[in-house]
Amino acid sequence: MDANAPPLLDLTIDNITPNAVRINSQSNDARLTYLMDRLTTHLHDFARETRLSTDEWMAALQFLTKCGQICTDVRQEFILLSDILGLSLLVDAINHPKPPLCTEGSVLGPFHTHDAPTIPNGSSMSSDPEGEPLLVACTIRDTQGHPIPGVKIDIWETDSSGHYDVQHADRDGPSERCVMTSDANGEFWFKAVKPVPYPIPNDGPVGKLLGLLKRHCWRPSHMHFMFEKEGWDHLITALYLRGDPYETSDAVFGVKKSLVVDLAKVDGPTARRYGIEEGSWYLQRDFVLASTKEADDLRDRNAMEELAKLGLNMKLVDHLPVPDLD
Amino acid sequence: MDANAPPLLDLTIDNITPNAVRINSQSNDARLTYLMDRLTTHLHDFARETRLSTDEWMAALQFLTKCGQICTDVRQEFILLSDILGLSLLVDAINHPKPPLCTEGSVLGPFHTHDAPTIPNGSSMSSDPEGEPLLVACTIRDTQGHPIPGVKIDIWETDSSGHYDVQHADRDGPSERCVMTSDANGEFWFKAVKPVPYPIPNDGPVGKLLGLLKRHCWRPSHMHFMFEKEGWDHLITALYLRGDPYETSDAVFGVKKSLVVDLAKVDGPTARRYGIEEGSWYLQRDFVLASTKEADDLRDRNAMEELAKLGLNMKLVDHLPVPDLD
Repeated sequence: MDANAPPLLDLTIDNITPNAVRINSQSNDARLTYLMDRLTTHLHDFARETRLSTDEWMAALQFLTKCGQICTDVRQEFILLSDILGLSLLVDAINHPKPPLCTEGSVLGPFHTHDAPTIPNGSSMSSDPEGEPLLVACTIRDTQGHPIPGVKIDIWETDSSGHYDVQHADRDGPSERCVMTSDANGEFWFKAVKPVPYPIPNDGPVGKLLGLLKRHCWRPSHMHFMFEKEGWDHLITALYLRGDPYETSDAVFGVKKSLVVDLAKVDGPTARRYGIEEGSWYLQRDFVLASTKEADDLRDRNAMEELAKLGLNMKLVDHLPVPDLD
Repeated sequence: MDANAPPLLDLTIDNITPNAVRINSQSNDARLTYLMDRLTTHLHDFARETRLSTDEWMAALQFLTKCGQICTDVRQEFILLSDILGLSLLVDAINHPKPPLCTEGSVLGPFHTHDAPTIPNGSSMSSDPEGEPLLVACTIRDTQGHPIPGVKIDIWETDSSGHYDVQHADRDGPSERCVMTSDANGEFWFKAVKPVPYPIPNDGPVGKLLGLLKRHCWRPSHMHFMFEKEGWDHLITALYLRGDPYETSDAVFGVKKSLVVDLAKVDGPTARRYGIEEGSWYLQRDFVLASTKEADDLRDRNAMEELAKLGLNMKLVDHLPVPDLD
């Protein structure tokens, strides 16, 4: 530490914050310094505005400890906590603003995994015999309407019981999840099961919190999609089924009107073309990706506008705000 | 949920916060509602002011997960995190304001345990043959100078190597910690070892954060005391040795001038009286406790004054602020 730094002595309700901010400002990483400044200030303001009691403080530390301890390779309680607090939706909205026409984003949730099998067009991503068969046929285009081939698409959903594969104790491999690649026409299609509503995991500390808050823990029926290709803004989204009982009260704030879809039924010619039984459920959807440049430009412009509105004098370094000290 | 509640749909950077606050306001617990309101608002403001990136968000969630997973029965990484962020100091200051003359508080830290042996006056609380012998003789009085008998006192310190007993992998029981009771004259005295400076645990996520922030992880030499008796405000404090190299840069912000002490040497009569070698280190200290009523009155008054300064219209219920909606 700087030998000339003022002594850290006799810290009080009134002077702890500037002193903590100062001691956290010794790295040469302007972004880290800014993040710690805002984190410390908000954390301390929270305690001051609530006159946080020692018992409440300890309960919060124990809650966070329990969240950490229930996490495993296939369970992420802190993502769930972020989801139910609306933080996940907010971070996605900040990072992936959508130029006109682009498909809106939705929450990632805690159930994406990295072991999904890569499947070719036409294959099934479900092994659930109880699920109602669903044919999904999609295109991926840019904002000018041109197809985008070679996009890696991660898709995951629950089985017909409302559980992701990782929630089954006897999971012996991935199911109801796959990775695909869009073809030369920007198309991909696969067989799945009709999504069902399901409760987010409510046997842990986050479920207990929802109970205290008298909130339900249900998500409306949906299917997750994640799109990835160099040069295109990473899109995490989901499609929601119209008419679901939880369509307007999603526990994790993910539903957007533009992402609510109607299912059709597979007719005879479609059934023969895709090799699926006539009368199965049929979901057709066109996705529109923003280019990295389109998204970066919009994100940077939004950031500077919003920070100016907050009265903060900032500049962007690597697209991330830091105080402008010049 | 209220059937007339507005739908949770199309949530954005600008409308997620009031919607999340609303959905968290359905319990009948006004304090919980207020805590969640301030928590959600500060958390979202933090993300908006920093334009928190998806990578930073994920790094934070992983950091919290690691903090939880390194916690054990004898290691509490979240208390450590709270300590190095200055939150612990702040919460103690809010909850235990000191009327004039009363002994100031300091941070609890993560090393208090509940298995310390109860010892009588004159016994030793250390089993460390390498430590420099120290005689500690104290009184406990009220603000009028009357002795307080029957106070339960928890005392803990590191051994001469700068480790608490729980930091030794081969710990087979408590050491350098004890529980005592003040006698009819409000006195207690015991044998210990001279405190040494030591690093807070820096092999976990909090240590890594301190490294990124270019902060040292040292605490100055000190001995912890906790005082408990029905009718008296719970006092958690520590005594710090004057002249310690970390006296003015404590990693957890605990040092107060009024808690810095000078050690003397035990003279002949004192040595014979207490049964300790002449020339040993000698720490004498008078502690002054606030009554529960003195502390409650001051805490309530401070709370109402500070909340009014913040422009918040609040009332106290069980000494804790909630919005005054009347």
